Amino acid sequence: MADYIAPIQRLIEQFRRLPGVGAKTAARYAFATLNLSEEECCDFADAISGVKRDVHKCPVCHGLSASADGCDICTSPARDSSVVCVVENAKDVMVMERVRGYRGLYHVLGGALSPLDNITPDDLTFDSLISRVEAGGIEEIIIATNPTPSGDTTAAYLARILEKYDVTVSRLAYGIPVGGDIEYADEVTLYRAMEGRRFFNN
Amino acid sequence: MADYIAPIQRLIEQFRRLPGVGAKTAARYAFATLNLSEEECCDFADAISGVKRDVHKCPVCHGLSASADGCDICTSPARDSSVVCVVENAKDVMVMERVRGYRGLYHVLGGALSPLDNITPDDLTFDSLISRVEAGGIEEIIIATNPTPSGDTTAAYLARILEKYDVTVSRLAYGIPVGGDIEYADEVTLYRAMEGRRFFNN
Repeated sequence: MADYIAPIQRLIEQFRRLPGVGAKTAARYAFATLNLSEEECCDFADAISGVKRDVHKCPVCHGLSASADGCDICTSPARDSSVVCVVENAKDVMVMERVRGYRGLYHVLGGALSPLDNITPDDLTFDSLISRVEAGGIEEIIIATNPTPSGDTTAAYLARILEKYDVTVSRLAYGIPVGGDIEYADEVTLYRAMEGRRFFNN
Repeated sequence: MADYIAPIQRLIEQFRRLPGVGAKTAARYAFATLNLSEEECCDFADAISGVKRDVHKCPVCHGLSASADGCDICTSPARDSSVVCVVENAKDVMVMERVRGYRGLYHVLGGALSPLDNITPDDLTFDSLISRVEAGGIEEIIIATNPTPSGDTTAAYLARILEKYDVTVSRLAYGIPVGGDIEYADEVTLYRAMEGRRFFNN
């Protein structure tokens, strides 16, 4: 593939690192970059090199933070520190934050248990979560791992190690997405929706 | 959209400059960039800032060149300098180069005539092409503008201004793409294919 001159070929190869970007899309991106002004190009390059430099890991929740001392959520006095939502990845925190109603804190595990990928409890931040629970003040842990085999395993493992502490443990409800159609729901989702059904006269 | 912390939000906005990239894709790219190593991130940033610095315009054909003195094609002694293929954009040169059979030179117009977008002959490199023709040595000009209204206009204009010179002027054949199916060809393409039909007994 020496179809392009060296600096363009080099940029195409960089764009191909991005998820779901093949040779054609990467070439399209490279030519679009070439059409940016000198200043826009500098801003773009700077944003990429800056993201590694300016993004820190929060020492409390292990989520992404603009400051090395702690993320905005953990350090905010407006948040309810008695509820902690446990998620797999830092990105999930931002997804959950779009649900404006939630005012509690988070804990990022850094992945999900997966024997096939050699991810054991030692690779995740369970110890750090237990320390937070032992420090006191936490009343409820909401497990928000993905509804996948590894997410389910992680949720079950977490529920078990939390058994001996005086905290309520819950997991996000799984069922038919709002606006979805029963006709197009898969069997597993329907089964989960049946299992998690709510009674009107309760 | 303050869902993400500042350095990530900034990178997302940069990725959104790319063609066809919306908020979700940009966020996906930004998190993928965050997962790159420090070194990979630097390489990526460097490739972006480098593309503006290292890519020059060839003074002869107006195509992209790794050197300011002239592109590899124009300076190559192996190319047939009696044939010049005229294309709209620099990217088209690289597309044409994949057709390994062509050994001639190129001329990049820098666009196509389009009164609606205020693109007049003065905005394109017609003068430079005429100078090349007047310098002598060119026997055939192959017009490879796009089969669009503006590409057709450009081809017609070019054919007219080249009339008074002693050069053969041709245009790429338009018709049914190889591997395509007549059933799915649009009417205009079919009309062009009829018009450009080749006779076996010729």
